[in-house]
Amino acid sequence: MIQRIPVVEKILSANDRLAEHNRTKLDSAGVFSYNLMASPGAGKTSLIERTIAGLAGRSRVAVIDGDIATSIDADRARAAGAIAVQINTGGECHLDAVMLQSALDTLDLNSVDLLIVENVGNLICPASFKLGTHTSVLIASVPEGDDKPYKYPGMYRGVDALVINKVDLLPYVEFDMEYFRRGVEILNPGLVTFPLSCRTGEGLEAWLEWVAAGRIEEMSAEGSPT
Amino acid sequence: MIQRIPVVEKILSANDRLAEHNRTKLDSAGVFSYNLMASPGAGKTSLIERTIAGLAGRSRVAVIDGDIATSIDADRARAAGAIAVQINTGGECHLDAVMLQSALDTLDLNSVDLLIVENVGNLICPASFKLGTHTSVLIASVPEGDDKPYKYPGMYRGVDALVINKVDLLPYVEFDMEYFRRGVEILNPGLVTFPLSCRTGEGLEAWLEWVAAGRIEEMSAEGSPT
Repeated sequence: MIQRIPVVEKILSANDRLAEHNRTKLDSAGVFSYNLMASPGAGKTSLIERTIAGLAGRSRVAVIDGDIATSIDADRARAAGAIAVQINTGGECHLDAVMLQSALDTLDLNSVDLLIVENVGNLICPASFKLGTHTSVLIASVPEGDDKPYKYPGMYRGVDALVINKVDLLPYVEFDMEYFRRGVEILNPGLVTFPLSCRTGEGLEAWLEWVAAGRIEEMSAEGSPT
Repeated sequence: MIQRIPVVEKILSANDRLAEHNRTKLDSAGVFSYNLMASPGAGKTSLIERTIAGLAGRSRVAVIDGDIATSIDADRARAAGAIAVQINTGGECHLDAVMLQSALDTLDLNSVDLLIVENVGNLICPASFKLGTHTSVLIASVPEGDDKPYKYPGMYRGVDALVINKVDLLPYVEFDMEYFRRGVEILNPGLVTFPLSCRTGEGLEAWLEWVAAGRIEEMSAEGSPT
């Protein structure tokens, strides 16, 4: 086990350098970008579909989808009206900056305003690998339960915004919203949060406003890559 | 990246040897064991609570809980009546045979009939690390969606049984059971499957029967560790 640590550190550091490179490329093309993370089935692709539809006519959206296998998610994003690229990680549990670089190379960034990167469904590993995007967003899902911030602190600590999806299921599951929010507040004080339902459309307006506003505002702030 | 592969292989092979060691230890003590895997919030701990209650008076159950952080799950298993040990992986996205060995050392296996190991919530990484248990069980959750077998084939391919939890939510979400089952059948033909709801109790009887029967039947089969 002792041998493993320096090797992993070396990979991470190479990854960070490449993330800076991706970020510069996106900045030059004027493309604002989101790294969307969540556990499997929390609603990443559904939120992307809703976002593409909600921004239609306002922003030209591209989607890069990361999955172990299949092109189901890219097909859905394409059907919703976006340019979409599928990355199959071939078993890897997260995207990394190399994979994003390869995907970016296939896109004409000059015809894109907004890029959404859908990371692999996983509440752990993606938090450790920067891609070079401007902002990171986590989707929690009501049926997953209210203890997730406590149990996956690394993910909750590192993100710039939180979507709480599937609020339409609140009447049918045990989910203590106050307990959940208390956990989030401990790890990431003041985190901007969007309770919504991709199924019913409830709460989507606030999310879409934030996505649209974030594009300009964050761009000038020049934060570090996510 | 090139340096990484041999190091990881070395760890995996050491892990497999240690898994055999764990298996021998469990066999000697007459303890039948399950490696329970699922994405975050699919209902691993709820199924464990139901299983402890359902086997009360029949089997003495011990639970080893793997999580990044907190002892929430072990506390719940203990409250349900089991001997419980919490492993905090400190960021690792899966349990491995070393962690299980350490946890086994803290248990008096002679006072245990059945061991349930609750792996870290993750549909990817735990599939690559044997622990030394007798049987592996995956929990799918209805609100996660019906495309999970297609998107996480490695996990679905490798398990010995599948629980489909939260069937009480079927009326409130889009979930095509036939499409889901078709995906499972392609990857793992004939896989034994238990549709149930830990919340309502529906379908639990068949699961409990299988757990109870498996104890004796599998023991004599001497399959390879999971």
